[in-house]
Amino acid sequence: MRNLKLTIAYDGTDFKGWQIQRNGERTVQGELQRILEKILCHPVKVIGSGRTDTGVHARQQVANVLTSSPIPHEPLMRALNNALPVDLVVYKIDEVPESFHARYSIKQKTYRYTLRLSPQRDPLQDRFNLQFPESLNLTAMRQASKILIGAHDFQAFQSTTPENKQKNSVRTLTRLTINKNGDRITITLTAEGFLYKMARNIVGTLILAGKGELKPSDIMKMLTDQNRAAAPKPAPAHGLCLWETKY
Amino acid sequence: MRNLKLTIAYDGTDFKGWQIQRNGERTVQGELQRILEKILCHPVKVIGSGRTDTGVHARQQVANVLTSSPIPHEPLMRALNNALPVDLVVYKIDEVPESFHARYSIKQKTYRYTLRLSPQRDPLQDRFNLQFPESLNLTAMRQASKILIGAHDFQAFQSTTPENKQKNSVRTLTRLTINKNGDRITITLTAEGFLYKMARNIVGTLILAGKGELKPSDIMKMLTDQNRAAAPKPAPAHGLCLWETKY
Repeated sequence: MRNLKLTIAYDGTDFKGWQIQRNGERTVQGELQRILEKILCHPVKVIGSGRTDTGVHARQQVANVLTSSPIPHEPLMRALNNALPVDLVVYKIDEVPESFHARYSIKQKTYRYTLRLSPQRDPLQDRFNLQFPESLNLTAMRQASKILIGAHDFQAFQSTTPENKQKNSVRTLTRLTINKNGDRITITLTAEGFLYKMARNIVGTLILAGKGELKPSDIMKMLTDQNRAAAPKPAPAHGLCLWETKY
Repeated sequence: MRNLKLTIAYDGTDFKGWQIQRNGERTVQGELQRILEKILCHPVKVIGSGRTDTGVHARQQVANVLTSSPIPHEPLMRALNNALPVDLVVYKIDEVPESFHARYSIKQKTYRYTLRLSPQRDPLQDRFNLQFPESLNLTAMRQASKILIGAHDFQAFQSTTPENKQKNSVRTLTRLTINKNGDRITITLTAEGFLYKMARNIVGTLILAGKGELKPSDIMKMLTDQNRAAAPKPAPAHGLCLWETKY
């Protein structure tokens, strides 16, 4: 069996997230699987580095798929990209050992969240960022971010839906940086792994810190109390992009 | 009667162009008119600076509308933008004399076409530009553009559909510049007025010149022969944006 590592990008707007849904809704995994099966002429299981939510984009998502087909990379990639919809592209295919597993072999993941500070929405700009009408205190956001960097039990920052909850909610944020460039604020988060909705929950928290509605002590309390109900709402999905995946 | 000048922007991807269609398809004029009538509580006619084709975007389109409603600009703009879909925004409302007519009063229009030179499509980038897999000779494109600048009979560059054909097809291109920045080529076209599909037909011609498939003498012949059938195909709509409108 060959094991193919696919590096892919997508505009998440019109997908119901990564994972195949029982109700047949349009998902990234579903589209990939459907097209791959057509081209490879056998059933496949596409394994992703992890799920992305409805509306979340990916600049560099990784998946792997086992195949018995002898079709070489180049014609496979061409055939795939001709058949895939415009909002989904496979831009690299690598032959990897059979032991490679897109989810279990991952070393590091980076998400980036982008805010555009403006009183008005802009249809030519706002597909991949959150238009935000208020000003934000960067210093306060950076202070808040420092509390979250490192190894913590991020239970208060994970999804509350029971099926998505992880028993072990300790994760290590190795990077959490906030940059401003013109009217854009980008928040970059790196970790070995993220809990479900963790990136968006952290961004939601940083936004409240930037608005002056959360003090550093409140954030510390969120970490120690591990109470999601007391934590802020997740930031909207369309501002988030799976930026980089390292193996 | 008050006459309101609306300055608007839209992502043209999911619109069947500007103009209201008899079959009820989704158009920019149709959406604007529907929402304005709800808010102003009387029938309105939205007059645009001109039509844009299916898939063409606008950074600065202008329309005007007559109303008897006393609702001030600010709350009207807020109400409009709350009700308009995400791909359409009104970002300015001005009170203008009753003689102002978005189509007849216009002094100058600028379109911009963007190409991204890359062998591969990118769902995070290609909504507003044409991904183009071949290299283009800029010098040849600029030579070709010089032939088109100025007053010419652009009959060979107008739409062939009878209902869109103008009797007088003389237009004056005051600007036709080609710039390259990294992997992007932008083609900027300015004129007092454009024929239907003229901008996309000119871009299609410049692309062929850049590929070495059209010589300056071929383009001169297109202008003098005035034969659309002999002219190149229009460039795809989604790379084009109505960039600026001057009154």
